[in-house]
Amino acid sequence: MTNLFQKHENTLNQAIDAIHNRGYWSPYKEQPSPKFYGETADEDGKKAVSSYLSKPFELEQPGKIGVSSTEKSPYGLPVGISYPVCDINILIEAAKKAQKPWQQIGANGRVGVCLEILERINRRSFEIAHAVMLTTGQGWMMAFQAGGPHAQDRGLEAVAYAWGEMKNIPSESIWEKPQGKNPALVMRKNYEIIGRGVGLVIGCGTFPTWNTYPGLFAALATGNPVIVKPHSNAILPAAITVKIIREVLQEEGLDPNLVSLAVVNKREQTQALALHLEVKSIDFTGSNVFGEWLIANAKQAQVYAELAGVNIIVIESTDDYKGMLRNIAFTLSLYSGQMCTTTQTIIIPENGIETNIGSKSFDEIAQDLAGAIDKLLSDPAIAVQILGAIQSIQTLKRIKESAMLGKVILASRAIEHPDFPNAQVRTPLLLSCDAADEKYYMEERFGPISFLVKAKDRDAATALSEKIVREHGALTAGLYSNKPEYVNQMIDVSWRVGVALSINLTSGVYVNQSGAFSDYHGTGVNPSANASYSDSAFVANRFRVIQRRQHITVD
Amino acid sequence: MTNLFQKHENTLNQAIDAIHNRGYWSPYKEQPSPKFYGETADEDGKKAVSSYLSKPFELEQPGKIGVSSTEKSPYGLPVGISYPVCDINILIEAAKKAQKPWQQIGANGRVGVCLEILERINRRSFEIAHAVMLTTGQGWMMAFQAGGPHAQDRGLEAVAYAWGEMKNIPSESIWEKPQGKNPALVMRKNYEIIGRGVGLVIGCGTFPTWNTYPGLFAALATGNPVIVKPHSNAILPAAITVKIIREVLQEEGLDPNLVSLAVVNKREQTQALALHLEVKSIDFTGSNVFGEWLIANAKQAQVYAELAGVNIIVIESTDDYKGMLRNIAFTLSLYSGQMCTTTQTIIIPENGIETNIGSKSFDEIAQDLAGAIDKLLSDPAIAVQILGAIQSIQTLKRIKESAMLGKVILASRAIEHPDFPNAQVRTPLLLSCDAADEKYYMEERFGPISFLVKAKDRDAATALSEKIVREHGALTAGLYSNKPEYVNQMIDVSWRVGVALSINLTSGVYVNQSGAFSDYHGTGVNPSANASYSDSAFVANRFRVIQRRQHITVD
Repeated sequence: MTNLFQKHENTLNQAIDAIHNRGYWSPYKEQPSPKFYGETADEDGKKAVSSYLSKPFELEQPGKIGVSSTEKSPYGLPVGISYPVCDINILIEAAKKAQKPWQQIGANGRVGVCLEILERINRRSFEIAHAVMLTTGQGWMMAFQAGGPHAQDRGLEAVAYAWGEMKNIPSESIWEKPQGKNPALVMRKNYEIIGRGVGLVIGCGTFPTWNTYPGLFAALATGNPVIVKPHSNAILPAAITVKIIREVLQEEGLDPNLVSLAVVNKREQTQALALHLEVKSIDFTGSNVFGEWLIANAKQAQVYAELAGVNIIVIESTDDYKGMLRNIAFTLSLYSGQMCTTTQTIIIPENGIETNIGSKSFDEIAQDLAGAIDKLLSDPAIAVQILGAIQSIQTLKRIKESAMLGKVILASRAIEHPDFPNAQVRTPLLLSCDAADEKYYMEERFGPISFLVKAKDRDAATALSEKIVREHGALTAGLYSNKPEYVNQMIDVSWRVGVALSINLTSGVYVNQSGAFSDYHGTGVNPSANASYSDSAFVANRFRVIQRRQHITVD
Repeated sequence: MTNLFQKHENTLNQAIDAIHNRGYWSPYKEQPSPKFYGETADEDGKKAVSSYLSKPFELEQPGKIGVSSTEKSPYGLPVGISYPVCDINILIEAAKKAQKPWQQIGANGRVGVCLEILERINRRSFEIAHAVMLTTGQGWMMAFQAGGPHAQDRGLEAVAYAWGEMKNIPSESIWEKPQGKNPALVMRKNYEIIGRGVGLVIGCGTFPTWNTYPGLFAALATGNPVIVKPHSNAILPAAITVKIIREVLQEEGLDPNLVSLAVVNKREQTQALALHLEVKSIDFTGSNVFGEWLIANAKQAQVYAELAGVNIIVIESTDDYKGMLRNIAFTLSLYSGQMCTTTQTIIIPENGIETNIGSKSFDEIAQDLAGAIDKLLSDPAIAVQILGAIQSIQTLKRIKESAMLGKVILASRAIEHPDFPNAQVRTPLLLSCDAADEKYYMEERFGPISFLVKAKDRDAATALSEKIVREHGALTAGLYSNKPEYVNQMIDVSWRVGVALSINLTSGVYVNQSGAFSDYHGTGVNPSANASYSDSAFVANRFRVIQRRQHITVD
């Protein structure tokens, strides 16, 4: 164990530096290039995923009571993998049994194992990326980056935070209190870091690794066993992850049941799992309905939840009109807006804005943004790479139904995927409406659906953005303005309601992107998330310190 | 502001070292000696407290709507201080207004001010100690130490933890992501630490400073305004504290309404305050009934609660029988057991134990412990110093009624206080019963009431102690055993149920003592407390980080 800590200590120290400096850093290469991952990496990854298809996924877990096969590829490809379904009580019992040896190897033992796991996962990035692409409908580049190295970054970040908190707790201290002329009182005190208990990580259907790794590694590093409950349509990336973890644990002489996969098909079974008295933390990404149910009912556990939100952009003015349009067009198109960070509501003063190429009316901006989206997606071969496929039938339905919400600026089109004829590919639906039409734009409409909202003036835009974020939450907020006093006004809003603000993005960074070690994902303030990837608060309460003390005689 | 940070930086760094090393350390002298506090300190403190009596307490707060005078001294002394009652909504509004400038002076600005406040409080230790003694019934030495320097230690400890978390968050970073042959993407990112909002600190009647300072300073240092709601019988120590804080804030050009005193007489008013939407954290010490109500109902706030518990000692064997008895006798007597850390349930195998002076039966231990208590309290002049006075009528009543619970080993006696003839002084009530008589000993009976509980054997004692702590909570657990394998068994219990364990205390450290910078007070695991004084988790989620980012051009 100590060897693994030493082996990865340099990476760990760099990660700690990175979270304190928050510049750009990553140990995992984001280019899906043979240069970094080996000549055969892509081929091997594809083959590995093919080898899983249409058969049982091999995972030696206790309490097997059946099998389940639920995944449907948004690309219309056959999946047919069946996963073992295990008795929840047996999984939890096995997890509890594995907890004490995991506690006893200490913080550096655990952190070393976690870093080794991440390295193994990194080596399998192509395999996991193909699994993510297959099950979520992401385009290849996003599946690789967000599903692979960027997810690993978030996992490592959580481990670094966990280590940052644990490393300052000594395992032993000598306490010596002077007693004037009498001999000092001397005690030896010992401090044991104890995980709270079983951590349950409930994944989502669109980012089965990126949204799972932070909670998984935060809970694990701080001494807790973890049960991963993936979304029923994106099990494979989680199953591969869990299998890698179990292999590493076994190699290290640890109990592999420390981490297991819970394939659960009915909401009631997930609820029963979430309410189990031994489940002490729940990391959840998903709907408000279930997230709020968890917070209200799973009182035995700490719930870290990322829920829905209404992400906003305010356009007040710009020095780079075309850059702005290109940037927003890409944001709205990427993975068909199926990201928790995609902008939904773009607020613009009704009298239009000043730009570097003259003033633009509300309608001109609307048309120009529609044009920018059309241009970006004009070549179907490129468009499908950006858009990916629509992950769920609900989203397809929502795109259709949302065309009634306001005035259609740009209709959503179906695009045929050159490689996957059964894929459901859709371009963004862009609507416009008045600020008064709150019912249209003031709830999350997940998918490629956005609104241009007409505000009376820029102050009304500020007030509206504050109201949206305060009441409905937002993971991201964008602002375009070349007026320092207005930028300050929006910074103030961002502080008051607690939302990360991206200002004047016109080039290769997008408001929906959040980079580990530098960007906090979620603030834990507004309703879209009660926690952040990652900060001290994300890890500090996942473990507790139990002390003991006794007198010792000093020579 | 920066000056204050520099002024106290050395103390802060020592405090940070102390919480990481957890040896003995304190910057505040615990001896009430003229050597440290000045020749006239005691006299000045007494005079200051006298000057408050029987008149309105001057505190310039907004929204004054009346006065309140509720304190009765357990020493039977006249108090008659009337405090301003302020409109809660006006206090909260004023607090919110004071929050932004407090945010904007940054983490080191806030920490500097907090450390200056603690230094001022420390200089007034005698005054605060006399106020604590008067209102709580503590003996002088305890009032001075626990009410003065030890409480200040806990305040400083919370500030050190807060600083430990905040100092690693840069206010700015330059993020530069290489783009192969293209120019790097470069952004400036800013990170603002924002307090969650108004912190409410609800004090208790027995330790009005020791249990108030951790939450007060944790919330304050992390950027939150604070409203202190003291127990209606121990307002003066909190009022003096708040007044000192407001003075320092004013001197520093800050808004004094950042910290205010809420004198509230009805439970419904406290409830309304606790449910106010702007109240984002609540630090509470007190009864389970109200604490659990807060946790269940104050959903807009994070609740840090210290509640009731059933503290235990298991006696399995000892190498120092007399030392053990003396030690336990003192624990049970100190402040008449009116400490959240006092042992209530002492579990002993029914067949007795082995000791350095031969085997002792259950009954012998009971008699010997009674004898040790009698001996300790044989001189009334010394006894009243140890016992102090009984703080509440409920406790007096409880002592009386508890004599029915099992067999009386040592009856509680009233002692006349030589200086304060109207003081209610009581010696400990010691009872014995069988393990089966759970209804006697398995709920908190606050005050000088303890049970010797007969367990079948040592394994039954382990099991019983585990059950008590798991179900009813405990802040402290003690163990007497000279058998390493049994000690290990109890260490395992302490890990499983999450309780601090003191092993073989036979000299000048007592199970009910918890020293800042070294001992964690509460583990946050068992039902007696959901948080700890102090650790990272006590501070890390009291603030959030709000970031903004924008491109910059590099030369």
